[in-house]
Parts: sequence; C-alpha cells; structure tokens
Amino acid sequence: MGTVTFLSDYGLADDFVGVCHAVIARIAPDARVIDLTHGIPRHDVRTGALTLARALPYAPPGVHLAVVDPEVGAERRAVAIRCAEQDRVLVGPDNGLLMPAAATFGGAIEAVDVGRSPHRLEPLAATFHGRDIFAPVAAHLAAGAPLAGAGDPLPIDELAPLALPQPVLGEGRIEAHALAIDGFGNVQLDVTHEQLAGSGLKLGRAVLVDGRPAHYARTFADVGEGELLLYEDAYRSLALAVNRGSAAGELGLAPDAVVVLEPA
Amino acid sequence: MGTVTFLSDYGLADDFVGVCHAVIARIAPDARVIDLTHGIPRHDVRTGALTLARALPYAPPGVHLAVVDPEVGAERRAVAIRCAEQDRVLVGPDNGLLMPAAATFGGAIEAVDVGRSPHRLEPLAATFHGRDIFAPVAAHLAAGAPLAGAGDPLPIDELAPLALPQPVLGEGRIEAHALAIDGFGNVQLDVTHEQLAGSGLKLGRAVLVDGRPAHYARTFADVGEGELLLYEDAYRSLALAVNRGSAAGELGLAPDAVVVLEPA
Amino acid sequence: MGTVTFLSDYGLADDFVGVCHAVIARIAPDARVIDLTHGIPRHDVRTGALTLARALPYAPPGVHLAVVDPEVGAERRAVAIRCAEQDRVLVGPDNGLLMPAAATFGGAIEAVDVGRSPHRLEPLAATFHGRDIFAPVAAHLAAGAPLAGAGDPLPIDELAPLALPQPVLGEGRIEAHALAIDGFGNVQLDVTHEQLAGSGLKLGRAVLVDGRPAHYARTFADVGEGELLLYEDAYRSLALAVNRGSAAGELGLAPDAVVVLEPA
Repeated sequence: MGTVTFLSDYGLADDFVGVCHAVIARIAPDARVIDLTHGIPRHDVRTGALTLARALPYAPPGVHLAVVDPEVGAERRAVAIRCAEQDRVLVGPDNGLLMPAAATFGGAIEAVDVGRSPHRLEPLAATFHGRDIFAPVAAHLAAGAPLAGAGDPLPIDELAPLALPQPVLGEGRIEAHALAIDGFGNVQLDVTHEQLAGSGLKLGRAVLVDGRPAHYARTFADVGEGELLLYEDAYRSLALAVNRGSAAGELGLAPDAVVVLEPA
Repeated sequence: MGTVTFLSDYGLADDFVGVCHAVIARIAPDARVIDLTHGIPRHDVRTGALTLARALPYAPPGVHLAVVDPEVGAERRAVAIRCAEQDRVLVGPDNGLLMPAAATFGGAIEAVDVGRSPHRLEPLAATFHGRDIFAPVAAHLAAGAPLAGAGDPLPIDELAPLALPQPVLGEGRIEAHALAIDGFGNVQLDVTHEQLAGSGLKLGRAVLVDGRPAHYARTFADVGEGELLLYEDAYRSLALAVNRGSAAGELGLAPDAVVVLEPA
Repeated sequence: MGTVTFLSDYGLADDFVGVCHAVIARIAPDARVIDLTHGIPRHDVRTGALTLARALPYAPPGVHLAVVDPEVGAERRAVAIRCAEQDRVLVGPDNGLLMPAAATFGGAIEAVDVGRSPHRLEPLAATFHGRDIFAPVAAHLAAGAPLAGAGDPLPIDELAPLALPQPVLGEGRIEAHALAIDGFGNVQLDVTHEQLAGSGLKLGRAVLVDGRPAHYARTFADVGEGELLLYEDAYRSLALAVNRGSAAGELGLAPDAVVVLEPA
C-alpha cells in the first residue's frame, strides 16, 4: 500500500482537507497520507507548482495529489500523470500545476484524463473536485489500481504547460522576478547561480537589490537583524530575505514583480 | 482497530489538538486519526454541528470525536452516542453539537454520560475536557471498549437539541438565514431546493439577493470575476458566493443574518 | 517502530512541516508522527520549551523532535538527548528549547552533537536544519538506530540552559511574569500555587491583577462574559483569562511583562 502526498490551496480553516483525507481513508485504509502544505495562496497555481516540485524529491515515491484549481467546474481537464523516474504518479487539474514536478522526475510518460474516471464519487459537485475526483483517483491508485483504468488516455503533448517569467540579463545587471513568497516574506527569484555568477555578483560581497544595499550571504545569521540578504535558499534557489523580518514587506514585492540585482 | 475522526474549534496555533492526538496514541496506538478541521469559529456550536454532519458521510465508520464546548467546566453533560446506522459513535459535549450528525445516521439509539467515565484522565482539568474526557473516551472506544462501559446510561430523549433558524416563505420572496460561513466567505443558507423552486427562482436565471443582482448558477466559473452567485454547494446546500471574492464580506453577512431572495 | 512527536515554529502556511514529514516517512516508513503544534511564535524559544515540557507527558515515549531555531546556520549546536526516565529522546537545537522537557523526565543522561551526524542529508542547507539534520536524525532514532551513533559525544553539563524570569514575592503582593500567551490570549504566569497561597490570595475570592478587579476562579464559566479571572490552567499552571475574550489583549501583556497580583 502506497503513500499519498497532498498539497492544496484549501487552507485549514474549513473541512476541505479533512474531507479529502476521509475519502482517501475509505478507499485506501492502509495508505499513508502526508500533507505537504495546504497554505498555497488561493488560486496561485504557480506557487503551488514550484512548491510541489521542490518538496517531492524529499518524499517517498507514490501518488502525489495536488489541487490548486481556480477553474474547477469549467473546461480544464483533470489528469493523472506517470513520471519517467521512480514510478511517481501525479494527480490534479491540468493547468500547469503538475508540470514542474513531472519535469523533476524525467517528465511525463503516460497521462489519463480522469474527469470521467470510474473512481470518481457521484453526484459530482461542480465546486469540489478535490473530494469527488482527485482524492478518490489518488486513493485507488495508491491502493494498486492501474493508471490506465483511472481515466481516458491523453497524449502527453496535450498537457497544459506552466507559464513562468524569464530573467533579463544585462551588463552587470539582472532583472529577476519574484517567483514565490513564503509565509515569512522570503522571496524566491527566477535567476540561477550561473546567471548570477556571469553578472559579477559574488558570495560574501555587497549587492544592490532594487537600489538598496544588501549582502550576498550564506545564511540569515551572517547579517545583522533587519538587514537584507540575497542567499541560496534551502532548495538551492536564489532568494531574498530580511533577518528576522519580511523581505517582501520591506521591498513591497508581490509575485511576478521585477527585482533588479546589481553589484554595489 | 478503528478510525477516529476529530473536529474542534481549538485552532492550530496552540498544542490543544496535538495533545489530544498524543492522548489517543497512548491509549489506541493503532487507531487512525483523521482531522476533519480544527478551524470551527471559537464557541460556534452550530457551525461545528453542521460541518460535522456534512463531512461524516465521507468518513469511514468508527468513532467521531467533536469538541466545540463553550460551557466546559460548567453543568453541560459530556456524552457518547451510538447512531442507528453504520455503528458510528459520536463523542463530545451535550450541547447540540452532535445532533445533526446523529440524525444523518438514523438518529441516536444509545447514549451514555461520560462526565465520570472510567476512561477519563485524572486530575481532570476544568478547562480542557478534550484532553481529559473526550479524547480518552474516543480512544478507548476505538480500541474496542464497549459503549456501555464508557459512562452512565442516559435516556436518548434527554440529549440537548440544536437550535436552528427557519426560513420564512412568502409570495415570490424567501427570507433565508446565513447558517454558516466558510473561510472563503461563502455563505450556507437554510433554504432547500424545494423551497427555492416554490418561490419561482430558477437555475440559470437572474435573482436578487438582499436587493443586489446575482445569478442562480451551477459553479463559480459560470459568472464573471467579482460577481455574486446563488448555487448548490458541494454538500447540496444552497449557498452564496462571489467568484474570486467573499460573499459574506460584500454583503456584510454574519451567522444568523437574514438574506432575502427574490426573482430579478 | 517508534513514535515521533514534532513541535516547531514553522507554521503551516509553507511546506516546511510537510517536507520534514516527508523526510521522516522515507527513513522510517512505519513510524507514527504526532504534530504537537507548529504554531509556536516565530523564534520564541521559551514558549516552545514550555509548551513541549507540558505536552510530552501526554505523549507516548519515543523520539521528540522540536525546532525553534533562530540561530540556524550559526554556531549553536544541534543535539539529541536521552532522558533519565521512560527512555525518551529529544532532538533539536541546543538553545534551551529541550531543557524543561528533559527536566520533566528526570534530566538528561546522555547527549550527542548531531551537527555532523552520519544521518544528515547532503547538501546541508544553511537555513533548514529541520529538514537536513533534525528530521533525519529523529527518524533514524525512531527506526531503532542507537543514540551514540547519531553524532559526537557531548558532556551533559555543556548543554545550553533556558533563561526564565523569577517572580518577586512581597508582603501581600506578587510580581509575576507573563511566561507564555496562547492563541486565545490566555496568559501563563510564573508563580506557583505555594507562592500564591503564601501571599494571601484564595480560590473563590476577588483579586487585583495590575490593579483591575478579577476573580480567582476554577473555570471560565465561574465568571461573567468579559470578566477577568485568575485560574489554574489545564497544565496546573496559574494563568489569566477573560471569559470569551483575550486577557493578553485587555491587559496589554506580552511575554516577560510584569503582572502584579494582590488581594482585593
């Protein structure tokens, strides 16, 4: 009996997450369910997608249920996707949410449209496919049901991609973007180490972030309280933080905002 | 070994929920515990009762622990109740919290007063019966202890009922009430489909909600962003929502508020 | 296979807690993980320490993982500690967080520095030792690995203590301190029953709290709505509350604030 990981934007104020757990427990009583987080900002598909892709390498192989689904009840497809590596299966809406995670495990090699899955609950509610489609499909797969039996075959190249911004690399200047912001106000950027190195920015040196002085440091404790730092976060992404403060708050950053990085 | 579902208004900021889990794990180490939600608004017995009754049909039969208990330490009884159907047992305060759930499974057929249960922890804290009475009673029942041994026999007709408002049905006009409001500001109403049909309101048509234009629609995506809709929610209750917004916020609704529905 | 309890200040908005669960599940797939709370105020080592020490007696013996770690990535040690009683093992940063819990179980009898543990994940992130050191060490210990193999031996008397304020006992007057404040605004004080009795304050009597009238009562329901009470909380500590309100809010109390108690 497998493991089901579960990520969503349902929050924990209501019973949405608990009811999905209940549905899984009825179908697959011996499956272990691991909540990755349910605190994805509501309808923020990109933050959900990036968080899922970063977290899953730490999780056991199995079924990975993810629901950030602003178009629930409309025309978007519901899918289950097998990855090339480690026999991992992703279940969720076909809106790009699952694609970075699939890429992390070698890409999709098999997909089914589960919108009319024989595993779905009836009557199907138009507003809660987590309960009626995604959780039961994930549970049946975790209990050993074959992927091909969970829905209708879907060509892999028809899966919806995820749109992501791209940094603009200039002479000694990078226009990066705020990709995602965590609960502490730390800001993940879309710039790689290679791009940063090419711009002349160096670990241990002073940098300018949107014109403000900051340090390119290893960890929060390398700068004073309230100081801004550029650092490699725990998933090896470049990020901004304020030691014991909120970088997003201080810099006024929302997702997709441009962030200019320059040597000081 | 059974399943224990757990619903409360304890929130997750403190260790109340975690300590109840710990107590259950000591007594019934093999029981599976499913958190339905701990986000019920503090002391809101009615929202807790309605949420419990809606969620439990999705959960495996077993022991259903629920704690929304504004009168903890005072005279209200603590009870365990066996339902007529599916051998489900409800454990919690006798303040109406468990009654809609009991009705969902055919009503109560056996009840015990667990205030002096042999399963309770000593010393009993006056302010935390979740830890000292309800969780240990639920755990012992999940581990196979008989209901009759969990407390003193209690006549079923002495169980406290839950007070609920009733809609007022007029000529082409319904005075409904806001029964419960979820974390997204969606508002559950106390009007049935039959009552709505009798008033001349029809799916797909325009309606007036407290005088404001709205659509009686199937799902959020059927209306534009920011528009008000009347819809059947995921539990087949009639409800109000604003697509990507908060109906409770926009209409200024709190629980028990009157909501007037009319054809447009 | 053992139980792992888990307490932190990570919150549930992000995936920090979920990723630690994932790491534990890979290493110790059969371990049961009990979340005590992840709502400790960020970086508040003392509240974390007091909460842990109060909660653990209700939990099954096993491995107790706790992470409130403002100095992550700096020089503070990472440790695992065996307690004298019940074979309980504490895992976390060496900043005082684990010490009240150790004292609850007879004190530490063995300690190892796990900063370079063979169980840690590589590459080690400077900002997320919960994932890369503490969770994997806890999981290996829960799976049966010996404590001595989890790190380098550490003399017990080198473990960092936890600083706590002390009440000032005067003639018919106590200067207590706000030790910790829960999510409802209830305020735990640092005064014992013996100290309170010596001051002439008696259960059932009126008292003055910072000059305001209050009742020394058994439970919230013993006073009117909105009234202030001094009471023994569910862990037998003296505490302040407002019935259906927030004592911390009404009295303007933050952790460490002085609270003067006098007979009325």
